[in-house]
Parts: sequence; structure tokens; C-alpha cells
Amino acid sequence: MKLLRVGAVGQERPAALDRAGRLVDLSGLVTEIDGAFLGGDRLDQVRAALDEGSLPGVDPEIRIGAPIARPGKIVCVGLNYSDHAAETGATPPAEPVLFMKASNTVVGPDDQVLIPKDSRKTDWEVELAVVIGRTARYLTGTAQALDCVAGYTISNDVSEREFQLERGGQWDKGKSCETFNPLGPWLVTADEVTDPQQLGLRLSVNGTLRQDGNTKNMIFGVAEIIHYVSRFMVLEPGDVINTGTPAGVALGLPEPKPYLRGGDVIEVEIDGLGRQRQTVGNA
Amino acid sequence: MKLLRVGAVGQERPAALDRAGRLVDLSGLVTEIDGAFLGGDRLDQVRAALDEGSLPGVDPEIRIGAPIARPGKIVCVGLNYSDHAAETGATPPAEPVLFMKASNTVVGPDDQVLIPKDSRKTDWEVELAVVIGRTARYLTGTAQALDCVAGYTISNDVSEREFQLERGGQWDKGKSCETFNPLGPWLVTADEVTDPQQLGLRLSVNGTLRQDGNTKNMIFGVAEIIHYVSRFMVLEPGDVINTGTPAGVALGLPEPKPYLRGGDVIEVEIDGLGRQRQTVGNA
Repeated sequence: MKLLRVGAVGQERPAALDRAGRLVDLSGLVTEIDGAFLGGDRLDQVRAALDEGSLPGVDPEIRIGAPIARPGKIVCVGLNYSDHAAETGATPPAEPVLFMKASNTVVGPDDQVLIPKDSRKTDWEVELAVVIGRTARYLTGTAQALDCVAGYTISNDVSEREFQLERGGQWDKGKSCETFNPLGPWLVTADEVTDPQQLGLRLSVNGTLRQDGNTKNMIFGVAEIIHYVSRFMVLEPGDVINTGTPAGVALGLPEPKPYLRGGDVIEVEIDGLGRQRQTVGNA
Repeated sequence: MKLLRVGAVGQERPAALDRAGRLVDLSGLVTEIDGAFLGGDRLDQVRAALDEGSLPGVDPEIRIGAPIARPGKIVCVGLNYSDHAAETGATPPAEPVLFMKASNTVVGPDDQVLIPKDSRKTDWEVELAVVIGRTARYLTGTAQALDCVAGYTISNDVSEREFQLERGGQWDKGKSCETFNPLGPWLVTADEVTDPQQLGLRLSVNGTLRQDGNTKNMIFGVAEIIHYVSRFMVLEPGDVINTGTPAGVALGLPEPKPYLRGGDVIEVEIDGLGRQRQTVGNA
């Protein structure tokens, strides 16, 4: 299934794409696409209703929000593609580098991205986002890990490099600014993603292709990441993992590095997961 | 006011201490002590009901939970006391060091703290926790910062030092383990804390006093921290800031460092904010 949330900011309601690609309303069946729903037993009911084809349609011009309500947490994996590690001057990590992103950074896939005040180095990062559907706590191996995945979506892990790297301390400072995590358009349930390690992912700015990678080049794959993270924290339904970005971010390009500016247009896509399009504004 | 949440894990209900120090039930007035309540206009109503003295009592033996429902985020300030920076071998920072802690680490003030599997360096950190009551976004100075504070409580920012410092990357990995943030017992509203920079804070393990500091020795005070954080992320009602720990953590003590072990008892207190007592178990 392709689940989504539509409507004005803060008033999103649950929706889905049916088999014909038509946008239909789930609000008669489900109150919210969130951890309680993803970790519960209502998914089959939604699937049956979609198969039946009786759900009311939704105006296809409606705003699309993030496909899940505010996550409990967003865990991010750093330097998880060797080409990206190389472009930032870092050694590929021996075990996953983890950091966190504030949940209130999440916006819809086509919402405006705001350059923070006093920012000079706002950057993009296309990433495969994993949405958790089952609690993952001290998994004993990778075998059970993918059973904990509700589905996948696109994340733009927007980053301010000066805040992240030059302001004394931890990366989180450059990762949690307002609007810094466009998510969506759809939460594609795990059963519809044959192999999460065979997905092309691309990002362009003002029509110039900047990132063109494939999840097969992750240093640590989705199952390894979930297994690993579950040893350090409890992953819960509705949590999101941003699994890292391939090469091609502004930080890795020659001077003058083309950091984002007001008016820029970012387009992001992952095979089978749809497309995002953000315009850039100033906070 | 001293607001708290009482009852079994996951079934906490709102309560308060009245002027006589008696535990009273707020569930007839308020559904939850959370961001919506703290950012709303119901606090005066609760205060009036407490003054009136008509609220029903609660069994004083009841379990005390964290004084706010799951925070939207927990922002932590690192190395914010010069004596603690010195004991860890770090230079006092020129601007606040920020990192994040997963919200599902929060437990009640007297709940068990679990040493993670494969942990050898689980450590304690008494901290003044600030609970946000009003959105803080790009504050222009420190003058408005304290207006954004709903109140204060005690935080034990439990930390696994090997995970934090020796596992490749960011501190968050050693800060977000299950049960790693005992919070409470009370949320003391800001009007009852005359000066947040004049509070003694102490932590003992098995009766040995390990930390004995005062918030006057913070490098960056509460108002400066809120102003600073608001330039990098949006603080919302219900968010928590752990403002850093004074000297005396296990990491800073001579070898063999007395990291926590199963059966240890941690007692934590801050002037005017009450006491915590945790027993240590194994995950």
C-alpha cells in the first residue's frame, strides 16, 4: 500500500493511493497514520477496503503532508555511503555513526524548506527513510530486523554544515532546524518494496542532478542498521531512520560550494517511492 | 505549583502537591501534563482549584511517573560546568555543545535504571531540567528566554561512556538507551523557582556523595541556553532541556572508575525540586 496524509498543515487526514493510483480518503477507517496505527492490527482492514474499491476519492490537488504523524524519534545514520564519506574527507566508519534529528523538523514532501537565520551552508541529502512498525529492542541478529519495518519513504535530511561541523560539538546542532526533514509523499508498505537495497535515489537542485546513487552502495544495509540501533535504544512504531546519503551534497563539491539559497528548487526521488519538490525560502 | 503524574507505567494521571504538601488528583480538571496543557491557558484554573483546597486526595504511596508525558524532544547541553569539562579532559566550550536524547528514555524518578546489554561504562549525571511552556523560535536575546519556561525538574542524564565516546561518532549513541532519563518527581512551575542559577544539586551512589554542585557554576545559564537553542531549532511546549552536569561522574574519577552495577542505588536531589531514588538493574 501507499499510505499518505493530506490536508492543511496540522490538519492532515489519512489517505492512500488505490490500485488505480487514485487518491482515496481513509479517515472513515483510521484516525491517523502514526505509531499506534502502524503497530496495530488495522492494516489488513485498510488493505481490504482498498481492494474493494469503495473508498471516497480526495481532490488530487490537495496538499500532501508527511506520511506519518510526528515520529517519536528520528535516528540518522551518518557517512553510510562510501562515496559520501570520501567527499566529506571522512574514513568509512567501522560501525554505524548515529545521530538524532528533532521530530518537529518533519514537513510535507513539497513544503518549503527554510534556510535558518545566520546560515551560510544549508545543504541537501536524499535518503531512504525507514518507518518502524514493530518495537525493536536488542534484536539478536539481522534476521528479524526487516520484520520491524512498516514501510519506506523519501527523506531529505537537510543539514546546515557550519552549525553541524564548525560550532563546537555534536552534529545534531545542524540537523534539527525548522523544516529540515521533508518526508514523503507516500509510506510504501514493506511488502511492496522487493529489495530495499536496490533502489536508485536522486536529487537535483534547479534542474542540475546533484546526487545519483543506489541503496546497494550503503555500507550498512537496512537490516544491519535496525539490528545495530536496537542495541543502543528502543525503536518504536512510528519512529523513523534516515539511512544516510550518497555522494553529491554541496559540502563535497568544489569551491564555491553551491549551498542552498532562497528561490532554489530541490527535486528528490527514489525508485518506487515517488518524488518530492521543495522550494527554498528564508526563515 | 508542583505538578506531577502518578499511577502505573503508561497509565499515569495528572496530580499536584497542594500547599499543605498533600498529593491531590487533577484528573477531573486536566487530561494530561503535556505540551498542550503547559502551552495552554488552564494553569490558572489548576492553581485556583489548589488554593480552594477541594481537590480529592491520592494515596501517597502511589508510583510517581515522569512529571510530563513524553516530551517532543530532549535537548542536552554538554560540558556546561567547567569542573565537569575539566574532569573529562575537555576544554570548556566557547558556545553550548548540544546533543539529543530519545524521548522514550524518560522514566519516573524512582523507576529502575537498566544497564544496557554489553555495557561496561554506565554513568550518572544529575542535571537541572528545564521544561518548555511557550514556543521559542529565533529569540532575539535572553530577555524573553525565561518566559518560555513552564518549570523545572530533576533529570538524571544516564550515559554509557563507551557507547558515547568510543563507538565511532556522535554522543547520542550513549545517551538514548532504555530508562536513561529518570525525570521528576515534580514539575515545579517557574514562578516558584526564584533563581534557577542558585540551586544546589547532588547525586550519591550507594550512599557515597558523588556530585555536589550548584547551578551558579553553569558556563551557560538557563536563559542563555534557551536563547541559543532557539537559533538552531524550534523549542515547543513540553520539550525538555537537560542543562548539563557538574563534576563527579564516574568517567571523571580515578581508575578503577566506579561505573554503575546491578543493585546500585542512585539518589539525586536539587534544592526545592525534590529527590529521586533509582535502583540499577540489568537489561
